Amino acid sequence: MSSEKIPVAILGATGSVGQRFIQLLENHPWFVVKEVAASEKSAGKIYKEAVNWTQATPIPNKVANLTMKNCEPNLNSKLAFSGLDSSIAGEVETVFASEGYSVVSNSKNHRMDNDVPLLVPEINPEHLELIKKQKYTKGCIVTNPNCSAIGLVLALKPLVDTFGLEQVNVVTMQGLSGAGYPGVSSLDIIDNVIPFISGEEVKMENEPLKILGSLKGNSIKNLDLKISAQCNRVAVMDGHTECVQVKLKKKTSVEEIKKVWENFSAEPQKLNLPSAPEKPIHYFEEVNYPQPRIHRNIDKGMAVAIGRLREDSLFDYKFVIISHNTIRGAAGGAILCAELMKAKGMLG
Amino acid sequence: MSSEKIPVAILGATGSVGQRFIQLLENHPWFVVKEVAASEKSAGKIYKEAVNWTQATPIPNKVANLTMKNCEPNLNSKLAFSGLDSSIAGEVETVFASEGYSVVSNSKNHRMDNDVPLLVPEINPEHLELIKKQKYTKGCIVTNPNCSAIGLVLALKPLVDTFGLEQVNVVTMQGLSGAGYPGVSSLDIIDNVIPFISGEEVKMENEPLKILGSLKGNSIKNLDLKISAQCNRVAVMDGHTECVQVKLKKKTSVEEIKKVWENFSAEPQKLNLPSAPEKPIHYFEEVNYPQPRIHRNIDKGMAVAIGRLREDSLFDYKFVIISHNTIRGAAGGAILCAELMKAKGMLG
Amino acid sequence: MSSEKIPVAILGATGSVGQRFIQLLENHPWFVVKEVAASEKSAGKIYKEAVNWTQATPIPNKVANLTMKNCEPNLNSKLAFSGLDSSIAGEVETVFASEGYSVVSNSKNHRMDNDVPLLVPEINPEHLELIKKQKYTKGCIVTNPNCSAIGLVLALKPLVDTFGLEQVNVVTMQGLSGAGYPGVSSLDIIDNVIPFISGEEVKMENEPLKILGSLKGNSIKNLDLKISAQCNRVAVMDGHTECVQVKLKKKTSVEEIKKVWENFSAEPQKLNLPSAPEKPIHYFEEVNYPQPRIHRNIDKGMAVAIGRLREDSLFDYKFVIISHNTIRGAAGGAILCAELMKAKGMLG
Amino acid sequence: MSSEKIPVAILGATGSVGQRFIQLLENHPWFVVKEVAASEKSAGKIYKEAVNWTQATPIPNKVANLTMKNCEPNLNSKLAFSGLDSSIAGEVETVFASEGYSVVSNSKNHRMDNDVPLLVPEINPEHLELIKKQKYTKGCIVTNPNCSAIGLVLALKPLVDTFGLEQVNVVTMQGLSGAGYPGVSSLDIIDNVIPFISGEEVKMENEPLKILGSLKGNSIKNLDLKISAQCNRVAVMDGHTECVQVKLKKKTSVEEIKKVWENFSAEPQKLNLPSAPEKPIHYFEEVNYPQPRIHRNIDKGMAVAIGRLREDSLFDYKFVIISHNTIRGAAGGAILCAELMKAKGMLG
Repeated sequence: MSSEKIPVAILGATGSVGQRFIQLLENHPWFVVKEVAASEKSAGKIYKEAVNWTQATPIPNKVANLTMKNCEPNLNSKLAFSGLDSSIAGEVETVFASEGYSVVSNSKNHRMDNDVPLLVPEINPEHLELIKKQKYTKGCIVTNPNCSAIGLVLALKPLVDTFGLEQVNVVTMQGLSGAGYPGVSSLDIIDNVIPFISGEEVKMENEPLKILGSLKGNSIKNLDLKISAQCNRVAVMDGHTECVQVKLKKKTSVEEIKKVWENFSAEPQKLNLPSAPEKPIHYFEEVNYPQPRIHRNIDKGMAVAIGRLREDSLFDYKFVIISHNTIRGAAGGAILCAELMKAKGMLG
Repeated sequence: MSSEKIPVAILGATGSVGQRFIQLLENHPWFVVKEVAASEKSAGKIYKEAVNWTQATPIPNKVANLTMKNCEPNLNSKLAFSGLDSSIAGEVETVFASEGYSVVSNSKNHRMDNDVPLLVPEINPEHLELIKKQKYTKGCIVTNPNCSAIGLVLALKPLVDTFGLEQVNVVTMQGLSGAGYPGVSSLDIIDNVIPFISGEEVKMENEPLKILGSLKGNSIKNLDLKISAQCNRVAVMDGHTECVQVKLKKKTSVEEIKKVWENFSAEPQKLNLPSAPEKPIHYFEEVNYPQPRIHRNIDKGMAVAIGRLREDSLFDYKFVIISHNTIRGAAGGAILCAELMKAKGMLG
Repeated sequence: MSSEKIPVAILGATGSVGQRFIQLLENHPWFVVKEVAASEKSAGKIYKEAVNWTQATPIPNKVANLTMKNCEPNLNSKLAFSGLDSSIAGEVETVFASEGYSVVSNSKNHRMDNDVPLLVPEINPEHLELIKKQKYTKGCIVTNPNCSAIGLVLALKPLVDTFGLEQVNVVTMQGLSGAGYPGVSSLDIIDNVIPFISGEEVKMENEPLKILGSLKGNSIKNLDLKISAQCNRVAVMDGHTECVQVKLKKKTSVEEIKKVWENFSAEPQKLNLPSAPEKPIHYFEEVNYPQPRIHRNIDKGMAVAIGRLREDSLFDYKFVIISHNTIRGAAGGAILCAELMKAKGMLG
Repeated sequence: MSSEKIPVAILGATGSVGQRFIQLLENHPWFVVKEVAASEKSAGKIYKEAVNWTQATPIPNKVANLTMKNCEPNLNSKLAFSGLDSSIAGEVETVFASEGYSVVSNSKNHRMDNDVPLLVPEINPEHLELIKKQKYTKGCIVTNPNCSAIGLVLALKPLVDTFGLEQVNVVTMQGLSGAGYPGVSSLDIIDNVIPFISGEEVKMENEPLKILGSLKGNSIKNLDLKISAQCNRVAVMDGHTECVQVKLKKKTSVEEIKKVWENFSAEPQKLNLPSAPEKPIHYFEEVNYPQPRIHRNIDKGMAVAIGRLREDSLFDYKFVIISHNTIRGAAGGAILCAELMKAKGMLG
């Protein structure tokens, strides 16, 4: 398989999610970045001159000298990862899918479309079937969830399956990279908290219902669940911390829940997908864990760290989760989706 | 009244709460710091040489050259503010009260004692009657609440009175000064969140029940209310941010609640106490307010700032509050208690 | 004098320097903000709706409801403070001066013009004479120095006068507000230092030569002095810290220099100008002082704090200085200039 | 060689430098941690229970369950890395050397001893000869330099060799981990700079003279060089940033200096030592590079990053350097010393 890697294009290649795609794909065993595309003002330039690279590792050599293309469906790579801004992602992705491209997108535009999988390979791999319902002859659109929703749903999935879930209350403390670059001004966040992130609470309250929903015929029946979310921005570079409370359908115990989390393993682990974490969930017993700077990179930044599980007087249990918002919560999550598609023979 | 100010002693004068007492009392119209006391290793030194002063304004001249005393009940000032460490506060304060001193304490030790008022002058001024029940002939002990509880109860009081309150859910993001000095290591908090503060959640879940309780005969009947608290430390110097959800007994509306908050005024405002905020509660309409760096000093740091009131799907309403943890939440709050005592003729 | 305050206009009123002008002038005894002007897209709006106010105190009531005007010379106030962006300040200020306005500017454009005073009232009040040479019939342009130069020249002035100065070496650690708003991205500065500020080193190496120069006939003869500057951005909200080394012409001692600094007092102090610091220079003996968060607001933010004076093996002496970059280094400095003009009868 | 790894002991194993030794040696090809020793209060405990582990990666399994020993010379490993506190390092290291142990130390105590190499393998590998002069029959003491000196001397070495060096002026902005744990209080450094680090300036002014000195007979003749240092603490986790100015003996050019740096390669590179960086110096052309968060980990954290080389009006050239203070500047640097000793047959 590795002798002939699948060529991929990055749409929105100069943005912060686009950069993460390029960084994470540098030594990928299945995919190789062959084309980089962005807005017209970049087209024609050499990538390294068009980009304001802000990752901690240098631009991969093979990508640095690629010539930037327009986001038009005349690319050679039939798999496109989209990190496009939501102001244009909706239309561009539709055009690409119509022209036969498989589009795996981190943008919010198509996430809630009836025929588009909002895919988390550990949770709802069967939702991929939805793409057969899409109107496109050959192409398709697959999306991954919002960066604050992904950590939450990974923690909830084993609870839904084992105990049933009635209510979820979540308060987030989110990292700065979630706002893109330049994003949050330093004058707004040093020695401060901003108790508001535009549009975020709605996404957190709705996306999990679809992700945890079930495929009936060829549509998704949302999980019947009430979520209330409050989202805050804090002075953390990467990593979203979430204080979660849950009300379960079935009685259980702290020890039982920990066991269910620790034992959780799913399709990506079984298929041994290259970007899959060894364990989707890592539970910590230390009283002051998890913490974003210590745990955001756990298992390649693809797992969720959980701690402080204890009983709650208003719900049943409360706990804290950490996940990496630009790896698991953006580019890494999308790459895992494409790996699942490849492994299932649903790419090209 | 101002011609003859009441002399006061500061117990634990070198600690961070002790320093705040000295700072806030610098130009107080009723009280004047005449004595500073701390542990034996400081006794005998000049204050400015014994203290590692960390406030933003210089040591008041009149205090700088006072000679430090032991925390023994041979002081001339009959009013003592205590910022003592909880490891010794319990016993020292009892000794002082026994010897006829009025002790107003910021330490946790006596807060939940049956005969000790846990006093918030805007909320429960009548609880002061409890001191008549204390076993001391002349002295007494009065306490003010934990720094994370004070902002919460100020916001809740008008809701309790107007609508009745059934449930409160709160998640905090607390400033660093709450941990004292040196407190939290910089290596633990830069680019990080610590989702745990030892003992804090228990205080937040219990103190409000007493503060909001009612005086029956000469004891307090706690308010019948369920509170769940989750406490986090964030990289903010001063100011506690709290995401709060409430379930009310009576139906109401967002506009009605705002009105009740804006109109809230109580005993300290009526008595025009020197440290009383003009308005205990300031509500902000800006979508991303309140923020700790912007609002912690509002109304001399003695008021609570609230914003983002909106309906909630699991409780009835949710909102965000900010209060200053070392002013309203510690020294400033205790001074207001003493002012109330003075105005009511209950000092010495 | 106070019964009839001088009406002033703020050019660039919505920017961060413009906001500081409005904040600092709120209760000014001589000046009152009557007009606010900015770019065309703001003109016609109410100020409070046009501005993204980021100061720690609220918008002064009298200014909040002023209607924004264009930056065109049809204003009623004959004194204009300019916080305009340097992309347009040059031309706009010239137009205003031509039409008879007194313009006191914080922008860099005219600072090095031969006939424009680069005014620091404690240092070169006589440079004001230059405006008589300006080609304008009634109006004039006066500038104040760059935010990193002002602290330096205040520290150097007494050394120049008493000992003579040959060489200055300076390395800065500058606060974020110096870059305006939104300015530096949080992703660029948390857990980081940026060892570069565009254009800053050139200003620091050149402006002091003019400021410390002498008025000969009607032009300035620069001081004969070599300065080398290296400028860094650090994660500090306000306040510039500078490590300075000096080579003097005359031999002296650490004690003698401290005395010269402590005794330094000048025209603004003699005239008792409203914004003048009581002492332009405060020296601290503590081994780890001065520090920006502790000392930036010293003497209303209008003085410079100095510490750590010691002998140096390559130059003669080294020391550390702190000054507030948006008070003394911008709006506050410009207001002091206008106060000097008023006191000398050189306004309108 | 790898089949039989050399057993090593870590002295001061619970401290922050001790932890780094254990972390960096986890998969070392030549050395394996077999013993961990610290103060009496830890002795007898399991390592993972004795330590407050603060590294970003977990405790290596093989070390986690080792039983802690006293720092007494009855260990089986004849090579000991010392991260001991300077209050006891001097004596303990002497005792170990007397008893036949090879001690490679990061502590300051013996650095300036006449017969102790202050070793930087890229700079002065021949200084190792000094240990033959030591009074110990079999054991020896080798030290590595202070964390702020190491980056500087690596940058200076090629200049000394090619152009000759007369004067060095350096101002540092140092990371927090240099102060150990808990080290700097968060209340002292958020939104602040501390322009003082106890004892640091003296080390920076003296250690380079010995490191860059030459072995004459069996003693070191210090380099004849004047250095002036000013040291500041900033809110950066790891990585020291230094603004450096140099006066050279021979005229040269910016381009020539860059070439000399880029081509610099030395003994550790030739011997291909496991911890050696591929290139000791990486030069960056970007106008705002190097930056600590981006470059501190370059080349395994063992290289120095340099940028902004330009002419200077007071010296000849100025530039900025970054190096990792707890890898290259502490444990990593000491391990490289031991690797050099092994490669030269000077271990046991």
